[in-house]
Amino acid sequence: MLTALDFAGTFVFAVAGALRAVQHRLDLLGVLVLAVVTGVGGGLVRDVVLGATPPAALADERYLVASLAGGAVAAVAAALLDRFRPPVQFADAVGLGVFAARGAAKGAAYGLGPIGVVLMAGLTATGGGVIRDVLVREVPSVLRHDLYATAALVGGGVYVGAEVLGAGPGPGLAAAAVVTTGLRLIAMRRGLRLPRPALPGENAS
Amino acid sequence: MLTALDFAGTFVFAVAGALRAVQHRLDLLGVLVLAVVTGVGGGLVRDVVLGATPPAALADERYLVASLAGGAVAAVAAALLDRFRPPVQFADAVGLGVFAARGAAKGAAYGLGPIGVVLMAGLTATGGGVIRDVLVREVPSVLRHDLYATAALVGGGVYVGAEVLGAGPGPGLAAAAVVTTGLRLIAMRRGLRLPRPALPGENAS
Amino acid sequence: MLTALDFAGTFVFAVAGALRAVQHRLDLLGVLVLAVVTGVGGGLVRDVVLGATPPAALADERYLVASLAGGAVAAVAAALLDRFRPPVQFADAVGLGVFAARGAAKGAAYGLGPIGVVLMAGLTATGGGVIRDVLVREVPSVLRHDLYATAALVGGGVYVGAEVLGAGPGPGLAAAAVVTTGLRLIAMRRGLRLPRPALPGENAS
Repeated sequence: MLTALDFAGTFVFAVAGALRAVQHRLDLLGVLVLAVVTGVGGGLVRDVVLGATPPAALADERYLVASLAGGAVAAVAAALLDRFRPPVQFADAVGLGVFAARGAAKGAAYGLGPIGVVLMAGLTATGGGVIRDVLVREVPSVLRHDLYATAALVGGGVYVGAEVLGAGPGPGLAAAAVVTTGLRLIAMRRGLRLPRPALPGENAS
Repeated sequence: MLTALDFAGTFVFAVAGALRAVQHRLDLLGVLVLAVVTGVGGGLVRDVVLGATPPAALADERYLVASLAGGAVAAVAAALLDRFRPPVQFADAVGLGVFAARGAAKGAAYGLGPIGVVLMAGLTATGGGVIRDVLVREVPSVLRHDLYATAALVGGGVYVGAEVLGAGPGPGLAAAAVVTTGLRLIAMRRGLRLPRPALPGENAS
Repeated sequence: MLTALDFAGTFVFAVAGALRAVQHRLDLLGVLVLAVVTGVGGGLVRDVVLGATPPAALADERYLVASLAGGAVAAVAAALLDRFRPPVQFADAVGLGVFAARGAAKGAAYGLGPIGVVLMAGLTATGGGVIRDVLVREVPSVLRHDLYATAALVGGGVYVGAEVLGAGPGPGLAAAAVVTTGLRLIAMRRGLRLPRPALPGENAS
């Protein structure tokens, strides 16, 4: 079940990455590259940082197949997908939750402390999108606005909390995923954002 | 012979990276950094991803020497090199082929499947250039136009095909390198490019 | 003592990274992310490249605590810090020296040759800042002007020289740190910079 959700999340992230490539007028290769980068980038960087090499994203080719499938769908149906934004965003929020939970669990399995586990949740869930944004020369959107990465970090915190309470990895994974996805959906609906620290000479916003 | 080609390819890539730095008005350090990044970046990232650490690019200092030599040549002779574009481009295509073939072989040696091997060919051949482009704030040219990365990926596919046919690593390496370089030269001469997926609301190009 | 300097350097680098985020109008998460990236990014990339995983920056959470503390200080006191530039720059130069010395020592411990050791000094001292600059879409300042990364590389060379002279790791570390910091301070005061290679058609500057 979780593995199936992993592939689904990879597919959804890849679609989102490929759509960004289409918007930036990249060619077919660029579209597929951004699909793969967005689909597996976060997990791949996490595995490399933890020393879990070769990364799962390369060792199990189903992740690459899911990414390429997402890229192909976006390449042929960008106009169609544009009409179904709410379901695409809902799927993206689910992917965010799954990736955050998996990232937290992997960080914990490699012996990281609580802050490290939280960071691995955020890195897994948003790292691919950050690389994608850097490649198309945008300041990564997760650094600028709304509760996207923050939802993943909170999910990582939930996983840590579940471990502290002795809840076992299964309930911890589920709670982290559900909280991340729920918080993301609420933030989207309500337009929630983090405060922005004041510049020198500026009143706090 | 292959090792000699490796060093030659590293040198050629480093020259190309350093010339980009000169165009962007970087100082001498920036020129040498972009030479090293472009010369060894692709292979270094590949090795780190595969867990082959410390990477060959650091463990064998001849790669660094070749990169720094390329950077030094470009720093003192940028104007001269500008007059010899066709031979520089030919050398670059040869480097592309060698790097793609080596990347595919290393991916296969680390147990990756066919898609992973193809990706390692592309990553090795173009990863350094992508990092260089990101550092000077350009959308990586390999994502935007013409058959550069695509030639490397096709070369990776040739390596996989040669393995399937039981051709052994020597002929596989040679075939991958020759096909990559040949495809790149043909694409340059004919101005071949990949199609660009249509934007929402736009007719397919 | 060296470990205390490590944490202090991490804190100072994190403050500098967070201030950049405030200037770029990032939200609180963006400020903390750039603090962590700048504080531990160089050492983390170095450890990943060398295969020292999980990296010290994750395995020992005090580095993350120091980074987050630096980010929090900058978030609440950006305007105040702006008035104390000289001490902030002095602290940054000390951090540069400590990081360069530690990076060189770690490279040597992992069996790199002299060029690799020098590169590890530069990567450790400036890698976090380079990633930060890429994330906020600036050409990394270390590639463009003044003797910042160069001071770290010279410090790496001093470490190599101390090893060749049989000075032992303690004096080597101290000499590398002192030379890097001293050179950086002199360069700041005198406005020293590296030459810039000439463009084609341009007279050498």
